[in-house]
Order: sequence, then structure tokens, then C-alpha cells
Amino acid sequence: MKYFTAKKYDRAGMFPGELVLPEGKKEERARVTVISYTPSDLTEKEISNPADISDISFDRSVNWINIEGIHDLETIEEIGRLFKVHPLHLEDILETEQRPKIDDQNNYLLVMIKMVYLSDKTEDGVEYEHLTVFINEDTVITFQEKPGDVFDPIRNRIRNAKGRIRKMGADYLAYALLDAIVDNYFVVPEKLGEQMETLEMKIVTAPSTETLMTIHRLKRNMISLRKAVWPLREVISNLERSENKIIKRSTVVYLRDVYSHAIQVADLIETSRDMLSGMTDLYMSSVSNKMNDTMKILTVIATIFIPLTFIAGVYGMNFDFMPELHWKYGYFAVISVMLVMAFSMLLFFKRKKWI
Amino acid sequence: MKYFTAKKYDRAGMFPGELVLPEGKKEERARVTVISYTPSDLTEKEISNPADISDISFDRSVNWINIEGIHDLETIEEIGRLFKVHPLHLEDILETEQRPKIDDQNNYLLVMIKMVYLSDKTEDGVEYEHLTVFINEDTVITFQEKPGDVFDPIRNRIRNAKGRIRKMGADYLAYALLDAIVDNYFVVPEKLGEQMETLEMKIVTAPSTETLMTIHRLKRNMISLRKAVWPLREVISNLERSENKIIKRSTVVYLRDVYSHAIQVADLIETSRDMLSGMTDLYMSSVSNKMNDTMKILTVIATIFIPLTFIAGVYGMNFDFMPELHWKYGYFAVISVMLVMAFSMLLFFKRKKWI
Amino acid sequence: MKYFTAKKYDRAGMFPGELVLPEGKKEERARVTVISYTPSDLTEKEISNPADISDISFDRSVNWINIEGIHDLETIEEIGRLFKVHPLHLEDILETEQRPKIDDQNNYLLVMIKMVYLSDKTEDGVEYEHLTVFINEDTVITFQEKPGDVFDPIRNRIRNAKGRIRKMGADYLAYALLDAIVDNYFVVPEKLGEQMETLEMKIVTAPSTETLMTIHRLKRNMISLRKAVWPLREVISNLERSENKIIKRSTVVYLRDVYSHAIQVADLIETSRDMLSGMTDLYMSSVSNKMNDTMKILTVIATIFIPLTFIAGVYGMNFDFMPELHWKYGYFAVISVMLVMAFSMLLFFKRKKWI
Amino acid sequence: MKYFTAKKYDRAGMFPGELVLPEGKKEERARVTVISYTPSDLTEKEISNPADISDISFDRSVNWINIEGIHDLETIEEIGRLFKVHPLHLEDILETEQRPKIDDQNNYLLVMIKMVYLSDKTEDGVEYEHLTVFINEDTVITFQEKPGDVFDPIRNRIRNAKGRIRKMGADYLAYALLDAIVDNYFVVPEKLGEQMETLEMKIVTAPSTETLMTIHRLKRNMISLRKAVWPLREVISNLERSENKIIKRSTVVYLRDVYSHAIQVADLIETSRDMLSGMTDLYMSSVSNKMNDTMKILTVIATIFIPLTFIAGVYGMNFDFMPELHWKYGYFAVISVMLVMAFSMLLFFKRKKWI
Amino acid sequence: MKYFTAKKYDRAGMFPGELVLPEGKKEERARVTVISYTPSDLTEKEISNPADISDISFDRSVNWINIEGIHDLETIEEIGRLFKVHPLHLEDILETEQRPKIDDQNNYLLVMIKMVYLSDKTEDGVEYEHLTVFINEDTVITFQEKPGDVFDPIRNRIRNAKGRIRKMGADYLAYALLDAIVDNYFVVPEKLGEQMETLEMKIVTAPSTETLMTIHRLKRNMISLRKAVWPLREVISNLERSENKIIKRSTVVYLRDVYSHAIQVADLIETSRDMLSGMTDLYMSSVSNKMNDTMKILTVIATIFIPLTFIAGVYGMNFDFMPELHWKYGYFAVISVMLVMAFSMLLFFKRKKWI
Repeated sequence: MKYFTAKKYDRAGMFPGELVLPEGKKEERARVTVISYTPSDLTEKEISNPADISDISFDRSVNWINIEGIHDLETIEEIGRLFKVHPLHLEDILETEQRPKIDDQNNYLLVMIKMVYLSDKTEDGVEYEHLTVFINEDTVITFQEKPGDVFDPIRNRIRNAKGRIRKMGADYLAYALLDAIVDNYFVVPEKLGEQMETLEMKIVTAPSTETLMTIHRLKRNMISLRKAVWPLREVISNLERSENKIIKRSTVVYLRDVYSHAIQVADLIETSRDMLSGMTDLYMSSVSNKMNDTMKILTVIATIFIPLTFIAGVYGMNFDFMPELHWKYGYFAVISVMLVMAFSMLLFFKRKKWI
Repeated sequence: MKYFTAKKYDRAGMFPGELVLPEGKKEERARVTVISYTPSDLTEKEISNPADISDISFDRSVNWINIEGIHDLETIEEIGRLFKVHPLHLEDILETEQRPKIDDQNNYLLVMIKMVYLSDKTEDGVEYEHLTVFINEDTVITFQEKPGDVFDPIRNRIRNAKGRIRKMGADYLAYALLDAIVDNYFVVPEKLGEQMETLEMKIVTAPSTETLMTIHRLKRNMISLRKAVWPLREVISNLERSENKIIKRSTVVYLRDVYSHAIQVADLIETSRDMLSGMTDLYMSSVSNKMNDTMKILTVIATIFIPLTFIAGVYGMNFDFMPELHWKYGYFAVISVMLVMAFSMLLFFKRKKWI
Repeated sequence: MKYFTAKKYDRAGMFPGELVLPEGKKEERARVTVISYTPSDLTEKEISNPADISDISFDRSVNWINIEGIHDLETIEEIGRLFKVHPLHLEDILETEQRPKIDDQNNYLLVMIKMVYLSDKTEDGVEYEHLTVFINEDTVITFQEKPGDVFDPIRNRIRNAKGRIRKMGADYLAYALLDAIVDNYFVVPEKLGEQMETLEMKIVTAPSTETLMTIHRLKRNMISLRKAVWPLREVISNLERSENKIIKRSTVVYLRDVYSHAIQVADLIETSRDMLSGMTDLYMSSVSNKMNDTMKILTVIATIFIPLTFIAGVYGMNFDFMPELHWKYGYFAVISVMLVMAFSMLLFFKRKKWI
Repeated sequence: MKYFTAKKYDRAGMFPGELVLPEGKKEERARVTVISYTPSDLTEKEISNPADISDISFDRSVNWINIEGIHDLETIEEIGRLFKVHPLHLEDILETEQRPKIDDQNNYLLVMIKMVYLSDKTEDGVEYEHLTVFINEDTVITFQEKPGDVFDPIRNRIRNAKGRIRKMGADYLAYALLDAIVDNYFVVPEKLGEQMETLEMKIVTAPSTETLMTIHRLKRNMISLRKAVWPLREVISNLERSENKIIKRSTVVYLRDVYSHAIQVADLIETSRDMLSGMTDLYMSSVSNKMNDTMKILTVIATIFIPLTFIAGVYGMNFDFMPELHWKYGYFAVISVMLVMAFSMLLFFKRKKWI
Repeated sequence: MKYFTAKKYDRAGMFPGELVLPEGKKEERARVTVISYTPSDLTEKEISNPADISDISFDRSVNWINIEGIHDLETIEEIGRLFKVHPLHLEDILETEQRPKIDDQNNYLLVMIKMVYLSDKTEDGVEYEHLTVFINEDTVITFQEKPGDVFDPIRNRIRNAKGRIRKMGADYLAYALLDAIVDNYFVVPEKLGEQMETLEMKIVTAPSTETLMTIHRLKRNMISLRKAVWPLREVISNLERSENKIIKRSTVVYLRDVYSHAIQVADLIETSRDMLSGMTDLYMSSVSNKMNDTMKILTVIATIFIPLTFIAGVYGMNFDFMPELHWKYGYFAVISVMLVMAFSMLLFFKRKKWI
């Protein structure tokens, strides 16, 4: 497993505000799509040349520029110039290991957040994607690390003019995007919750190194998820209480709703961590129990047969003068004594509830 | 066990504020009952048609609309329209996995809370029910997930005009409902407390996988209960300090009382968690002790008989020239030596307090 | 052990502010004594009829009404009416499982607190008693659960006009009572501290289930004590910072002193909890050590004698052709080999510091 | 070990503000020394009669009255009267189990603090001494529990007029004393740190009950030290932010320095606690490892010799018809088989890396 | 390992504000280099005589004085006099065990911080260096404990007039230095993260004392790192919110960026600690599992062969009358019985999944 994929290190000593690709990444042309809409009207287009971005007519009420692939310095810089984004913020967009945060500038808001997917590609079954959302009066720009997102339902509603989204401003669109992301967070703890249910029985019946590794992996998952979700609460809370005019009063109630969902995921993660910690205890106790059972078997066998073997040994000695050996029923007497001993031992262990 | 029954996931990608049934639930007609009263007067009726709700005459001082079954979109929407409830709040009513929270609007207050029952239906013996309480100037609406509640004593007092409830407003009714719910919370830690008492003796005398599972189940119960109770403190505290005119000054002292009860349950849960954590330690130590006892039995038996068996083995050898074998009292001498050895071993273990 | 004696449950569904006896308690006449004093004057009397309470002349500067036994609804109600106590507060007086709290009304202050006694009656050796202190301009009322308290020294000082108590108001009397209670808290951690001292040696030398149970009992004691003391700090701090005119400025410095004592007990409890947690670790390690010692004895015995027994077994075989058996010194050679083996084993274990 | 030496208990029920000796202590004449100085002048004297204290001429700019031995009620009361100290504060001076605190009166400041010494007298190697520092406009009074302190360097500087101390006021002197005390705190974690270094190797190579006890003792030491240092941070912080005119603005920067040292000791203690907690884990794992090693020896010996002994036993049976016994090379064949078995077992354990 | 290298102890009793070398250090001439620049101009020089520092012409817009080696009292004092540094702060510069802190004076800011390097010289592979940064209107002074730093990229940019650094003031230079230091922090958790990845597999497959020591060492590393990073967050946050005019508004956004990086390192450390704590659990469980496996081997061997050996022992007895011995197929019958017993045992263990 890769614990820290932070490529922050490579920047050490670099000059602040300078836009360079993270080491090991090569420049890739981003896919830029623009959806512009008014309550009554809608245009969608894909832009292939970064320079064309400035050609978008911003006379529509709301524009959503979606950028898939952030390793395209030319596009990022073009947008930075067009929307007057602070160089440090452009750098933040590229820094995918950034923790969720919000930057509240006079002319725009910048929200950095993680998207979470269930995925078979990573060992832990969960994949994270860094997403930056730029919001100003009439434009929302989403910078996605890779193609593929959770925004299709929102695109459909905009196209179908369903719900109130077409009538609201850019802040509402931003809210809708955040809501979609946070709602998607529930997928992971739920999936892991299912795994925990099946795990619990296994721990008690058949604790193995494998079950232990599963607990450990789930814990690791929760730690990662927490790292993504925990700062989110503060981000949304700051967004909600921002005095920036970009966020309109009517949108605050919606943000509060996202906030309560974020709290709920955080709660779920904490509860899962408590549960997993309880499971580690359960595992340890279960292994101890099994070991005790092993010990008991050994002790029962040894306690019954060692003394008997000793008696047999005694009458196997070759002394010239051993009167018992010449008694007629000596052999049967000894066998009987042995049986009595064995049965009393068994009784003793029975009463101790070992067998 | 089901860890997370949250069906939040199914909403991922859904449009905010849209009223749909949670997946797997089918629409069911809710049972709507209305109690309207003034200090001197009282009417009760059951409404079978959602459209009839608007026919309730709101000239009575206080109206309590109780809705049993929330999977009835028509009724919910009708009420939403009638009482000007924000679409997001209507959605919250349906979201039964919501954590307790309060929403303070200008024209109404919305309190989301959990009812707790002891129940034989769930594995953990505890059942949770989501309850939404809507409060405005003259009306209290309770949205219950399922039929059956803890409000019968309150209904009886309203009917019998007992106590001051008939003379007070909607805020007092809301308080009375919250008080009944919080008082009922004490049932669970008390029941679990009883189980803990009997458990403690078992842990020391006969620690088994079953006792371990019981500790684990109690821990899980406490985690769930905490999840329901913890946010409640903040909810009631916010209600108490709300500057909304719906809550009258005279009701604040009552809310403070509910608050102190909520704190008390929270305290009880924390104490129980501490106790249960102590019990896990006790269990582990107890198992270790038992294992040590097992080891001691094995060691005593082995230490006494293995050397004796060796001696018997020696005199069982078939060497031609073994002088001891031909001594007259060789056999008795060896038996005596063995007895002396065995007794000194026993004495040694006696002094070590192993036997 | 009884974990939760809370009879709160029985109230679930009851009407707020209604005065009823907790289930299982029967009404008992309370013992009411009144001490009234001015700097120069003092009267003491016992009131046998609740109705007579209103006959107390309140022209004295300070009146202390002490009520022993709270299961006397008539007296409680009479006092409630006379001193205009809110019905909810009267109910609080009866609720002995209440956690420490303070209620600050315009015309009076109500402090709920626990008295702690060492006692042989309970399994844990500690007994708690609920005490409510009512304070207004000129009267202090103490509601005690049972007869017997820690106030005798204060009574004596009032009678002997010793110290400044006779010259001060009701708030100073209330302070003196609180101070006596808090000072008495130190009894318990000190007693438990003594037990911990003797326990520590036992853990290392002879860890048994009994020592474990003692640790567990001490932990439980600390949890209970903490429950009583922790909220106290906030109670006294609120009392000290109260803007209610009942508490005079000159008394604040005294309350601050009580506060610092309350902090000190809380500190002591936390320290004890840390110590006890360290002791559990010590116990577990000590048991592990003992088990290792047991294992070592077994291993030493087995490792020395099992190979020797094998050799003896070999020469006990009945093959026709075993040349060694017919050598003259075969027997002595084998015995010598065995001795050499045993001694080298002993040397090996000696060097491993096992014996 | 003595956990709680608090003699607070003996006061339970006593009257507040009354000056009595703690139980078990007898009145002892204190040693009172006075250093009075101006930038240019200095007098030192020892006062043998408490009544003489009032004869000190307070026309010097700064007076430092040092009192060694607090069990001298006459002196304490004389000083109390002379400097108008609140009776409760006089009582605090005698209460050596007091936790560090500050009392900010109009006419004086009272700082209660602990001095820490390495000492061979106590089991833990650390000794605590209660110190009260009284500060007013021109006088600093230090009440020490016992003779001997860490102030000699300060005395020397005053005498030698070295540094700025002679030019500064009483608040600077108080600071210098506090600084000397806090600097001395570092002695203990450093000494313990050295012990931890040697301990760590021992834990892994030779974990014994003794190493365990040492960890436990260090933990206890840290708990005690924390109890002395933790509240100190708040005390100094309060002193620094006090609005009392006794503390001059120019002294605040010095107090801030003491504060940062106090934080540093607190940090050191927390780090040590983390380390010690890690060491307990290390110890437990190390013991487990050793036990596993013991088990492995036993298992190797038993697994190799028990089957061989069985084979020898078989050919020691006395059946009339056992063809193998009469084969010429039967004996050698069996011995060979045994050797092969033993070697394959050894190989198996070798491959398992047990031997 | 050296836990506490704090030489604070040696100062105990020393006079505050006095500049002396830490014990065991001898005075060494520091290497002083000065870079002075305006947007258009740049001079660099090395100063060999402390007295020459005052000769630096401060008419340039920004001066960066870098001092390598702090054990040069003459230089420190000269700078102190020249820049009016408070004596206490000069002392702080020498105190290399100081925790990160900021001192906000009217005429300057003093930031104390740790530089972190990966190093083969220390046992833990990490080296810390104390760095003090003095900032005033036009000058930044860096006091380094030893030669060698992470500032070369910044030097190069100043020389090449790359980026905006030449156009900005001293506060921006200070920011650039802090940024370089904080960026370098990521090196350590990343390196340790890599070690953790390889460690995890080892724990499960081959847990040894060595793996345990590695976990312990990593934990110790994290504790040290945390000690360096944790207070840093507050330091930068205070710097960002400082109302001192030295920090210009335009620099605040850059400081906020450093702050978010500091938070990110702190996060990374906490996550690592969680992971390492999970690894200790994993280790303990893994050792328990291994021990259980050892026990199982022993039990299987003992349980199969001990009863068989007993049977062999029985027929090795020398009784005159043992009918079985004379049966023709007695021997084969017994051998068969033994085989059947052995196979049923094997089957039993097979079904228990032990073999």
C-alpha cells in the first residue's frame, strides 16, 4: 500500500507561485467543456484550444467550465489570467495532495475538495480525486484530476431545466456540485459497513491473519476517509458563513444542508472507527480464547496419559524382585487402576467444563 | 448486524429538494390525527384524505397534528404547502438516518430527534425511530416513522385537562413531547446497566466467547445510543437559546430541565462506555489468568511424572550388567526414591501456591 | 453491583412538574429543624407539622431550615408554596439521581450537589447522598435524602458564635455548607489511595483474580466519584460568577476557595484514574511474566528429561541383536552420557538465566 | 509509595479561614530572613521574634522576606496582619497539597507553586515543596515548606548588584524567583530521560519485572510532575495578563519568557508520557516474544523426541511374536529410521527459522 | 537514543538575560554572509569581523544577514545592539532546545523554528536544527545552529532576480524562507511512510524483535517531528494575524499558504501516528497468532504420540500373566489399533483446521 503519495516533497526549495507539473507527470491536454445557461436558454460546447476560453461569451447568467485533467499548464494559466486567480491558487489546483480548504478572495471563492469513488484499482478499494471549484459572480469552474465525475445528474437537470437550478445563480450551481460530492461520500462507509458485518462473525468463529489484515485495511480506509472528510466540515461551514457577496442569502439554507450531511459522514466515520477498535479487541480476545482451547486439549491429554505411562513404565522395570509381577491378577489390577485414574481425570476436567 | 442502514447513498446524484421515497420503500398512506384544544375546549379527529388537512380550523389556540408513517409523499407535500415548509426540510423529514438537528426558520422551528425503544425485533434489543417535530405559533406537527409512540400520557393529560398543558401554547406542547422522549431514553442505559451487573460476575468466573460477544454488543449499543443522544444536547440547547418568538420566555425554564436530562443520559452513556472498556480489560485479564491456571496444571503434572517416568525407563533397560536390578530391595528403593521426588515436587508447588 | 440506580425511568411519560414519590419509595415524615440567628441571638426548633413552617418568624437575619428525608411531599409542597419555588425545581429535589447543577432564579438559587461518605453498607465502600440547597436573601434550606450529614461543625460554630458566621448573611452560610461538603470529598480518593498503595506490591508479587477485581472496583469508584465531582466545578464556578444579588461580593472570595478545592479533588481523581490505568497494564504484564515463568519450568523439565527418557527407551527395546546391551560397562556408559546431557542442558538454561 | 499525602481530609468540617496546623505537624519556629535593597544599598538580617517583622523599615525600594518553615502560626499571622492578607490566603499558605494557583487581590498577588528537587529520600527520586510567593508594590514574601531552595544565585546577584535586579522593583524580583523555579523543573524530565535511554535496551534484551516496575515508576513520576507543572502554565499566563498595577509593563516580557519555559517543560512531560506508553507496548511485545521463544524450544524438543520415544516403546513391548525383533539388523534399522526422523524434524524447524 | 538533549538544565539558577554558551559548547566564530538587494541591484559579502556588521549600508531595500553557527557571543551581541534586540531574545537564539515560537515586538518579529533533515548521523535518521529568524522593516537575519541549509534555491532566485522576490520587501523574504523550511518537512513523513509500507508486510509474515524496534523507532520519530511541527501552526497563524506593520497585507496570502502546508504536515504526522498505532496492534496480534501456531504443533504431536506411547508402555510391562502377549497376532493388532488412533487424531485436527 502507498501511505503517502504526496509529491509535495519535490517542491521543497521551489519558488512559491511558480507553476510546474508535479514530478513524474507529463503535460497532457485537458478536456474543457462549457455549459452556459439562463432560465430560458442553454449552450454547451467543448473547447480544444486554451486560447479559445477567452472567447466564451459571459453574457449568459451562469457559466460552468469543467476541466478534466489538470496537467495542462497552458489551460490553467489561461484561466488564471482570464479570471484573475492568484498565482498561489493556480499552484494549489495542481497540488493534488492538498487537504480540503477554502480561500475567500474578494472577487472569487476557491474550494478544494476530494471526490471519493469505490474502485477495484487500488488495494483498499477506494480512490480519491482532488477537485478544485472556482466560484465567482457568474461562473463556476471545476478542475478535475481525471475524467469521470459524479456530476451527470446535475448536467441532466440543467439540460432538462428540471428543478430550480436554471433559475438560480452560480453559487447555487456550486452548491449543487458540492452536494453531489458529499452525498457520494456515503458510498464508502456503507460499503465498508457491509464488510464489517461479515467480518464480525469471522472474528469469533475463525480468527486468522487474514481477518486481522481486513480489520487493519478497514482502519486504514477510515483514516484516509477521515482525512478527506474532516476538514470538509470547516470548509463548508466557512463557505456558509462567508460574507463574500458571491454566496447569496437564499443559498445559505442549502449550504447548511450540505453541512449537516458532511457532519453525518464524519459521524459515520467516527462510529466506524469505534466499531473497528472494538473489533481489534474482539480479535485479540478471540485469539486468546482459541489459544486457551489449544492449551486445554494439550493439558487434558498430557494429564491423563503421562501418569498412566509412568505406571506402565514402573512395571516394565527389570528388577529381579518385583512381587506384583508374579501375582495372578497383577496385570488386570494395574489396568483397572489405570482406567479408574483416567476416568477420574476425565470427570475432573468435565467438572472444570474443559471437555 | 446492520451497521449502517443509511439509505443516504441512494440519493447520491439526486437533485436537492426533490421529494422521493427512499429506495426499497413503497408509498403508504399515513395515519393523520389532529388534536385541537383551548383551555376550555377540545376536538380530536382523524384525517383520511391529505387534502382535508387544509380544512382544519386553526382558530383553536393549539393544534397537534400527528402523522404516523412518513412514506406518504402526498400528505407531506400538502403539509409543506400549507405551513410553508422549505423543500429541503420536507426532504429531511423523509431522511430517517438524519442525525438530531434543529432548523430555526423565521416562521417555524424544525426539530429532528430519535425515539428509542427496547425491542425484541433487533439483535441489539434496541430500536430507533426518526421523529420530526414542526413547531410554529399555534401548531405542532409530529412526523413519526412508524405507528406507536411514547406520547399517550400527554394525550391523556390534554384530554383530561390535567396539569397546565391546556393553558399553555404550542411551544409548551412541543416541550412536553421532547420531555417524554428524553425521559424514555433512560430506559436503555438502565436495561443495559442491569445486563452489565450480571455480566461482571460471569467475566471473572467463566469468561467465554459468549460473554465477550455480550460486551461487544453492549459497546455497539452504547455507540448507537450515543450517536442519537450526543447531538441532542446541542439541539435542545439551541432551542432554549433560540431568539425565535415561537419559544416563549416561560417555556425556557422547562427546556432547561429537558436539557439537564439530556446531559444526564449523555453522562450515563459515557459512564457505561468507561465501565465497558474496564470490562474488556477485565475479560482479557481473566482469560490470561485462566490460561495461566491451565499452564500450571500441565506443568505440575509434567514436572512430577516426566522425571519419574525417566527413572522407570532406566530400570527398564535390558543391559546385561545392571547391578541394581539384582539387589533384593532395589525395586522398593526405587519406588521410595520416586515417592520422595514426587512429594518434594508437590511441596515445591504447594509453596509456590500453584496447588 | 448496581450500576444505575436511576429511577428516572419510572417517570418516563409522566407529566412535568408533577410531584410524586419515586417508585418503590413510600411517603415518610421528614425531620425539619430550623436554626435562626442574628449576630447576637439564636433560636433552634424542630417542626413536626409541615403547616407550622409558615409560622417561622423571618425577622431574624438568617434562617437555616434543614430537612432530613425528602420523601415527604406535604413538607416539600408547603415549602415550595412558601418560598415560591418553581414546580420543576420541587421535582428536582426528589430526583436523587440528578447530576450536580445550579438553577439561578430571580428570587432564589438552587444548588444540587452530592454528599459522599465512606460506608461499609455498599460493595464499593462509598455512599452518595443527594443534597439540594435553596438560597434566598435570608434563608438557606437544605434538603437531605437521609438523616446524618457533615454539618455538625457548622452548627456548633453557629451556636458558639465562633468565627464570622453569625455576622454574615445567608449566602455565607450556604458557602460554609458547600465548603464542608467539598472538604469531605477528599476522604474518598485518600482512602482509595491507601488501598492503591498496598495493591501495587500485590500486583507484582502475587497477581490474582482478586487483585484484578480490586483494581476494577477502584476504577468503578473513581468513575462514580468523577460523576459527582466533575459537574461540581461548573456549579461552583457559576455560583461564583452569578450576577444574582443573593451572592454578595464579599462571599465571592470564599466561593473561589471552594472552587479551587473542587478543582483539586477533580485533579486527584484524574491522577488516580491515570494510576489505575497504569496498574492494569502492570497487572497484565505481571500475569504475562508469571505465565512465562510457568512455561520456563515446564520447558526446562521437558527439555532435560524427554531426551533422556528416549535413550532409556532405546535400551529397553527387545531386539535380539543389540551389541551395547552386552558390553560390560554399557549401562554405566549410558548413565554417564545421560548425566553429561542433563548437565549441559542445565548449563544452557543457567546461561539463559532461566534457572 | 504514598499516592496522596493530602492532609486536606483532616480539615473536613473545619471552619473556613481558621488557621490551624495540619494534623501530625507540630508548631516549629520559622527562620525569617529579610533582604532589603535599593539600587545603591543593601541590608540583610535574620528575625528571630515574629513581632520584630513589623519593625522592618519599608522605606527601601524592595524587601524580600524569606520564611523557611510554614508551621509557625504566630509568624504567619503576624505577616497576615501586617500585609493585610485575607485569612483564606493565610490558610492556603499552610495547605501544602494545594495545586499551583494565583490569587489576584487589589493590594497584593499570591502565587502558589511547587519547587521540584531530585532527592534520594523518596522512592521516586523526586521531592516536591510547596512555595507561596506574596507580591505587593515593594515587598516579596516567600513562604517555604522546608529549609533549602534554588534561590542562592539570585541572592548572590542581589548582593553583588549584578545584572539589573537591584534597579528593578518587587515584581522583577518575583519574576526572577519564578524563573529560577521553572528552570529547575527541567532537572527532573532530563534525569528521567536518561533513565529511559538505558531502559529501552533492557526492555528488548532482558525484560523483567524490575524493568516493568521502572517503567511504572517513571510513569508515576511523570503523572506527579504533570500535576505540578500543568496548572503552572495558567498561573503564569494569568500573572502576565493581570491588570493589577503591581506587575509593571516592563516585566511582562520576562514573564512571557517564563511562560514559554513552562510550556516547554509541559511539552517535555507529554512527550515523555508518549514515550513511556510506547515503552509499555514494547515491554509487552518483548515478553510475548520471549514467551514464544520458550514455547519454540519446548515444541522443538517435544516434537523431535516424543515420536522417537514412541518407536522405542514399541520395540520394548513383550509380545511373543514380533518379527522385527529377530531380524539381524532390526536394531540398526530402527536407529537409522530414528535418525532420519530427527534430522527431517530439525530441517523442518530450520526452515521455519525456529532454530 | 538521546531523549532529551535539552541543555536548559545547565541554566537553572542562572540570571535571566545573561548571554552564556550552553555547557559543553565552546565559542566558535560564526560565518556571517550578507545579501543586500533592490529590484535592480544586488551585493553579496562575507563578514569576518563582528564589528564590521555595523558597516553594512542599510540603504538597500532588503538585507538578508545569514549567520551560520550561533556559538559566537560576540557576533550575537553585536547584532543585538545594532538591531535593538531584547536581551531575553538574544538568549533565546542560543537556546537550541526552544520550541517553535514567535515574539512580536514593536520594532521587530522573532520567529523560532526547526529545520528538519534526513541524516545518517543520528540513530533515528532525522536531524533537527534550531533556526531563529529576525524580521524588521528592511532586514531579515537568520541564525543557524550549523552550516548547511535549505535556502540555496532562494539565494539563486535572488541572484537571478527570478520571480517577484527582488521586488518585494523583507517580510516576503522571511515568508520565502519559512516556505522553504515547511516544504522540506514533507521529506520526513514521506521517507518514514515508505518504511512503513515495507514494514507492514514484515509484521504479518515474520514479526521479530527487529520489526518491533522499527515500529518503536518510527513512533519516536513521529513524536519528535510532532514536537517540531505542532507549535509551528500557531506560530505561522500568529504571524499571519499579527498587527505589526512589518508584515504587509500583500504577504498575508502567502503566509496563509505556508499555514495550510504546516497543517498538512501536522495532518500527515497524525495519520502516521494512527497508522503506527494500528501497526503495534497488528504486531501484537501477529505474535499471538504465531504463538498459537507453535502451540498447535506441540499439541498435535503430543496428542497423537502420548497415548500411543502409553499403549506401547502397557505391553512393555513384565507381568507374568498378560494374555495378549501370547496371542499370535497380538503385536499386529496393537500396531493396527495405534494406526487407527493416530489417523482419527489426524482427522480430528484436520477438521479443526489445525493441520
